[in-house]
Amino acid sequence: MEIKVLKNILNANDQRAQENRGLFERNRMVALNVTASPGAGKTSLIMATIKALRDEFRIGVIEGDVSSAIDAETIGTVGIPVVQINTNGACHLDATMISNAVQSLPIDELDLLIVENVGNLICPASFALGEHKNILVASVPEGHDKPYKYPLMFSKSDAVVLNKIDLAPYVDFDRDQFIEAVNGLHADARIFELSCKTGEGLSEWNSWIASEIRKERTA
Amino acid sequence: MEIKVLKNILNANDQRAQENRGLFERNRMVALNVTASPGAGKTSLIMATIKALRDEFRIGVIEGDVSSAIDAETIGTVGIPVVQINTNGACHLDATMISNAVQSLPIDELDLLIVENVGNLICPASFALGEHKNILVASVPEGHDKPYKYPLMFSKSDAVVLNKIDLAPYVDFDRDQFIEAVNGLHADARIFELSCKTGEGLSEWNSWIASEIRKERTA
Repeated sequence: MEIKVLKNILNANDQRAQENRGLFERNRMVALNVTASPGAGKTSLIMATIKALRDEFRIGVIEGDVSSAIDAETIGTVGIPVVQINTNGACHLDATMISNAVQSLPIDELDLLIVENVGNLICPASFALGEHKNILVASVPEGHDKPYKYPLMFSKSDAVVLNKIDLAPYVDFDRDQFIEAVNGLHADARIFELSCKTGEGLSEWNSWIASEIRKERTA
Repeated sequence: MEIKVLKNILNANDQRAQENRGLFERNRMVALNVTASPGAGKTSLIMATIKALRDEFRIGVIEGDVSSAIDAETIGTVGIPVVQINTNGACHLDATMISNAVQSLPIDELDLLIVENVGNLICPASFALGEHKNILVASVPEGHDKPYKYPLMFSKSDAVVLNKIDLAPYVDFDRDQFIEAVNGLHADARIFELSCKTGEGLSEWNSWIASEIRKERTA
């Protein structure tokens, strides 16, 4: 007897992620899943992106944290719609959390949804949210060896933002080794070297996000 | 009919952790579980501790990483017995991994076992390894808000090492707020402010570890 094997069966999370992606595409908006170690500068990058793009595009934010609403409060100060998800111990966001959270956002009015994942370089790599682009924020003081230690997350990231380049003179960070490692894991990954503190390098990042939004709106 | 309720049933990990702890105590040695965000400086702290204490005490190291043997190679350069555990995607070490790893160490000759956990401020908090002390390494560039965002890990740590104080002049880090937050989660936690790079503050840390080892040997 031949056993029938059903291929490409999605797990529950991937199925929900596809539904989220469908919603985002019907709205012709771009969704970013921003991941990082704790303290690499995800919230600072999101704030800088909002500041640069809010005049041209409508932006919403979902903040993911194990605990606290510190980041959502920060985003809230600039008058952008924001929802805080507290995972109560879970080490990553999942697609169901996102589909619940978007119900509290004016999703059909948005051009850009930025999801700030829980600060963790491991678990979020295994849970799609429905995003168009995975963005990994690394930072200079963390050291250049992080791609070797957290290869799955780097290999799944469409763009790697290397933040805190203003601290490069004060730490031992081998830029060439970092970039070689990132390219080795994902040859097509965009790399943006910048400092959210000084503003250096931000314009290239903001231009890329703006071009991605325009592409989606005219798709 | 009265239903009998068995209390204090340990889960499989806690049971194995107790066995590890028993082994460590029979050997009159101290075991440290060192946790942190990626790049906070766990390996640098371990290297500095080895350098300061190796003349007086026999030290062994277990390195935990999702991938790579970079840290074990670093420890190996100074001739200390070291075992690398690769979790292959898992976001934390567990007690069974430790009980397997100690079989590759001269455990009955050691005074101090240092376990470097996977870089992650969430999951390792839920898995005891048999350690005497939990050490959390935070670092100045990560920011002072980390205790609020990762409260479980901070609340379970017997000592918090604030590393990279040499970078304080270049970043926005509110020391008082950080210390207040740590104390709020664990009033008795020891706090060591130091720089593995410049060596500032290391002697206080090393003296504390040395006193913990002496206490255990004369217990």
